Amino acid sequence: MVRLGPNRYGKAEVRLVRVARGARPDGGDVLKDWNVSTSLSGDLAAASLHGDNSHVLPTDSQKNKVYALAKELGEAVEPEAFGLELAAFFLSSQQPITRARVSIEEYGWTPIGATGYSFARSGDLVRTTTVVVDQALGVSVVSGVQDLVLLNTTGSEFWGFPKDPYTTLPEAKDRILATEVSARWRYRPETVDSGHWGSSFAAAKAALLSAFSGTYSYSLQQTLYAMGSRVLADVPEACEVRLALPNKHHYLVDLSPFGLENPGEVYQAGDRPYGLIEGHVLADDAPDAGLAWT
Amino acid sequence: MVRLGPNRYGKAEVRLVRVARGARPDGGDVLKDWNVSTSLSGDLAAASLHGDNSHVLPTDSQKNKVYALAKELGEAVEPEAFGLELAAFFLSSQQPITRARVSIEEYGWTPIGATGYSFARSGDLVRTTTVVVDQALGVSVVSGVQDLVLLNTTGSEFWGFPKDPYTTLPEAKDRILATEVSARWRYRPETVDSGHWGSSFAAAKAALLSAFSGTYSYSLQQTLYAMGSRVLADVPEACEVRLALPNKHHYLVDLSPFGLENPGEVYQAGDRPYGLIEGHVLADDAPDAGLAWT
Amino acid sequence: MVRLGPNRYGKAEVRLVRVARGARPDGGDVLKDWNVSTSLSGDLAAASLHGDNSHVLPTDSQKNKVYALAKELGEAVEPEAFGLELAAFFLSSQQPITRARVSIEEYGWTPIGATGYSFARSGDLVRTTTVVVDQALGVSVVSGVQDLVLLNTTGSEFWGFPKDPYTTLPEAKDRILATEVSARWRYRPETVDSGHWGSSFAAAKAALLSAFSGTYSYSLQQTLYAMGSRVLADVPEACEVRLALPNKHHYLVDLSPFGLENPGEVYQAGDRPYGLIEGHVLADDAPDAGLAWT
Amino acid sequence: MVRLGPNRYGKAEVRLVRVARGARPDGGDVLKDWNVSTSLSGDLAAASLHGDNSHVLPTDSQKNKVYALAKELGEAVEPEAFGLELAAFFLSSQQPITRARVSIEEYGWTPIGATGYSFARSGDLVRTTTVVVDQALGVSVVSGVQDLVLLNTTGSEFWGFPKDPYTTLPEAKDRILATEVSARWRYRPETVDSGHWGSSFAAAKAALLSAFSGTYSYSLQQTLYAMGSRVLADVPEACEVRLALPNKHHYLVDLSPFGLENPGEVYQAGDRPYGLIEGHVLADDAPDAGLAWT
Repeated sequence: MVRLGPNRYGKAEVRLVRVARGARPDGGDVLKDWNVSTSLSGDLAAASLHGDNSHVLPTDSQKNKVYALAKELGEAVEPEAFGLELAAFFLSSQQPITRARVSIEEYGWTPIGATGYSFARSGDLVRTTTVVVDQALGVSVVSGVQDLVLLNTTGSEFWGFPKDPYTTLPEAKDRILATEVSARWRYRPETVDSGHWGSSFAAAKAALLSAFSGTYSYSLQQTLYAMGSRVLADVPEACEVRLALPNKHHYLVDLSPFGLENPGEVYQAGDRPYGLIEGHVLADDAPDAGLAWT
Repeated sequence: MVRLGPNRYGKAEVRLVRVARGARPDGGDVLKDWNVSTSLSGDLAAASLHGDNSHVLPTDSQKNKVYALAKELGEAVEPEAFGLELAAFFLSSQQPITRARVSIEEYGWTPIGATGYSFARSGDLVRTTTVVVDQALGVSVVSGVQDLVLLNTTGSEFWGFPKDPYTTLPEAKDRILATEVSARWRYRPETVDSGHWGSSFAAAKAALLSAFSGTYSYSLQQTLYAMGSRVLADVPEACEVRLALPNKHHYLVDLSPFGLENPGEVYQAGDRPYGLIEGHVLADDAPDAGLAWT
Repeated sequence: MVRLGPNRYGKAEVRLVRVARGARPDGGDVLKDWNVSTSLSGDLAAASLHGDNSHVLPTDSQKNKVYALAKELGEAVEPEAFGLELAAFFLSSQQPITRARVSIEEYGWTPIGATGYSFARSGDLVRTTTVVVDQALGVSVVSGVQDLVLLNTTGSEFWGFPKDPYTTLPEAKDRILATEVSARWRYRPETVDSGHWGSSFAAAKAALLSAFSGTYSYSLQQTLYAMGSRVLADVPEACEVRLALPNKHHYLVDLSPFGLENPGEVYQAGDRPYGLIEGHVLADDAPDAGLAWT
Repeated sequence: MVRLGPNRYGKAEVRLVRVARGARPDGGDVLKDWNVSTSLSGDLAAASLHGDNSHVLPTDSQKNKVYALAKELGEAVEPEAFGLELAAFFLSSQQPITRARVSIEEYGWTPIGATGYSFARSGDLVRTTTVVVDQALGVSVVSGVQDLVLLNTTGSEFWGFPKDPYTTLPEAKDRILATEVSARWRYRPETVDSGHWGSSFAAAKAALLSAFSGTYSYSLQQTLYAMGSRVLADVPEACEVRLALPNKHHYLVDLSPFGLENPGEVYQAGDRPYGLIEGHVLADDAPDAGLAWT
């Protein structure tokens, strides 16, 4: 005999662009460019077991609410606040739904020209957030950054490692260190209602950059820990950071067959394989994570 | 104060192509095309905290072992067996390492021509496996399939759903149902040592196809449950199935402005947004999953 | 002073899925899955120069016609025939339009199960066609294949090449040869009206496979020429073939540091860089290509 | 009988990262991140026809020269100058080679922190160049930009277009205009030897941005022409501009079913289909393009 385990459903990748006309201090427009995904859980087993959809609010309705809420909430709402409102709406309006998850990617745009209405996509990173609202377990907010590519041309070593029969890697006293940052940080429950989401995000991003740049590194693990620690230090409303850092290898090219020296100048950027370093950094008093990372 | 939480590191996406020359019954070659990722955990905190790499077997060494093991294990090894050997090697040879995870994607190739050495890439799906070996918690194997795109031109309805103020979707008594299957199934611990991995995979794939094709569907949730149940029924060595099924919407085009009827003939295939249905199906006697899904 | 040069505009990537219900000999459905792009040229300068759109049929109207034509042409139409009809429509119905280009990608699906309405996406290749209809220069049809990945585990050498001061590549007497075929062939003008498009495509695809498989290769250039020549030999209605063949390098892994031999068994599949071989093969009596490749 | 037509071969996507240590005025490093592709033509038919490689300089040697030249040319070389040197090298050193093409993509990096050696990838655009050196036809340089995404929240209309039986699009007096710019401009032959490539690129990019932002648009065609004209006006060393501008549709969401007005605030960003506008803009005295665009 078999049984249905945890399950959820929703609408993924609702592409929402919100223009707040004249909302800038200089009279220019504010542009929000989001990719919103919703996911609902609750008393839904009948759909799976019997094709009974009486509790299944259509994913199309979820999509419609995303667009409507963008109007209802007015201008300049942060993605975390939007996600909290949206998730709470599904729980309050659909009795069978006991948990809602909203995930948002925000793409940055930079004003260009003097029109006040012209923009160029920034492309340097994607801001993310995931909100979970559960009837029993409460509210959690995890925000983050992805697609942020960082590189130090020096200030990185890697040596003192064990040598097994399959080890041919020479020790490195100076190497390029490059990675594409995926970082997420969990906000403390008590700050969720009063979140200054924009400034918290800015502080976390600045912490990631400055820790990457400012850490003399003996391994990417060490840099990861420094980045996570810095976020916790500079963003006290965060209590846990999870990072996934690919080690984007840059190989110093051997130019000696061509009679050339290559003292740290010419590198081949590798695609695959790459190292992958993953780790969590927590405040000592971090409360239980509950559903935050699900 | 902060502390280091769970962490792991390894080499990702080692691209391994293995030729077993003359290994086919007809004398032709056997071609294995894999993407292998390793990840190690254990007594590694010193690297993060102090830049002390004395326990950090280089990811480059892990990569080398992948290639060496492909030679050492000889011909025609299944990815699950390869992963088990590789993970066990890291635990047995590196005292600080207490857990190893190996993940493999296998790309299919079809022999062409009469040479015995010519192939075309199949492209219909990717076979996957993830093996975890933990010193304390033992061994787990999860295998799966991804990038398998299925479509029923009829035999699918969706109605009887709740209508909230944001519901505009009409009820559907006949629609296209299409999805891109991501399915993973966990093997029972007692079968791990005796796995007939190839035939288990073939049976699971066949179960997914036949359940998708043969289920008259009132929701993709129902189809998901049917697919998971069928795998458990047809592959008794599996005890749990996890599926993620995007609902790839196909919109019937309104041709009435052009004086044309469109009785289920012409559709627009949508990109985004899409529905996303996720669920687990378990055997009633499924043992605890342990680290299988981590 | 500046002037407007050649220009065109249209709708790109119209995703059309066409179901012909019961059209298979066994009573099953026929599924066509296309990606259609249109492009129009003609007396259009006023739009660029003065913002005068009186000759600019909206790209939205072009999209609508794609869907309507799929209904109007009935079942089982080949992409080449569809493109010819569509292009001719734009010229005949819009006086300022003197040239139309239609490009179609077709994705393959394989029937599964016994329902007659269930399919799995094939994934082995994409069939393509580009039709150009010009008021003055007439009609051309170029069809092709892309994303077809082929590999020979042996039967390939590369040696006898010049050695310049930057040459370190050893000569190879036995190597893997792998490529991802992009091939397009131009049909003779006199066959355009009577095209047996499906069987011509099948013959060309078979020719590409058999020439790749059956050619003992001293360079990918030689294989390219064999593939092009075979298409022209087996598809007499084609008069020119253009191929772009990336040389997807497979590097024999040096296992000697680990005390292992590797006689053509274990390879690393490389991503970048890759070789890229491009060439045209023509029938001696191939007429001028006109606009076929534009 | 068949014959070999135009053909070429080379190494594609050589990933080159060049560090010029201390080369910034502030003592910081300069980082160049390139993707280099080479392609050679000439007396090469024997390879295709007979597998005779005596004229085929290996693509591996071409790759080696890319890396060596990055050392040989020293610091801070522009991609156009690099391509010219590289192409000329192949012609001068390989007698059978009569034409070389070098194509380079440059990815931008922004210094971060105070170290002088830390960078974040910019991500806003890719700078491109293609150099062709031909023994008979001389030298050409085409530079450009791609992946530059621009958006105006207003200042765009589209109306006055013809209405055919398939036209349902309403006229628009105010719409979002968004595109992803692919632009290439050809330099005048007489400027090739004295190119101030960096400042020309900066001027062209600024011209594209300011023309997009500053043009009140009645069609994307009009905007394209304005962008091309502006480049020619502001970069007199350029004589031709070719642009491909996808019309990235943003659909105003109909919120009236939910009792909400939507006066230009909430949009759905569409993926496919999209418009595609392509056009050339030339200086009246532009010389023949020769091989520049091949």
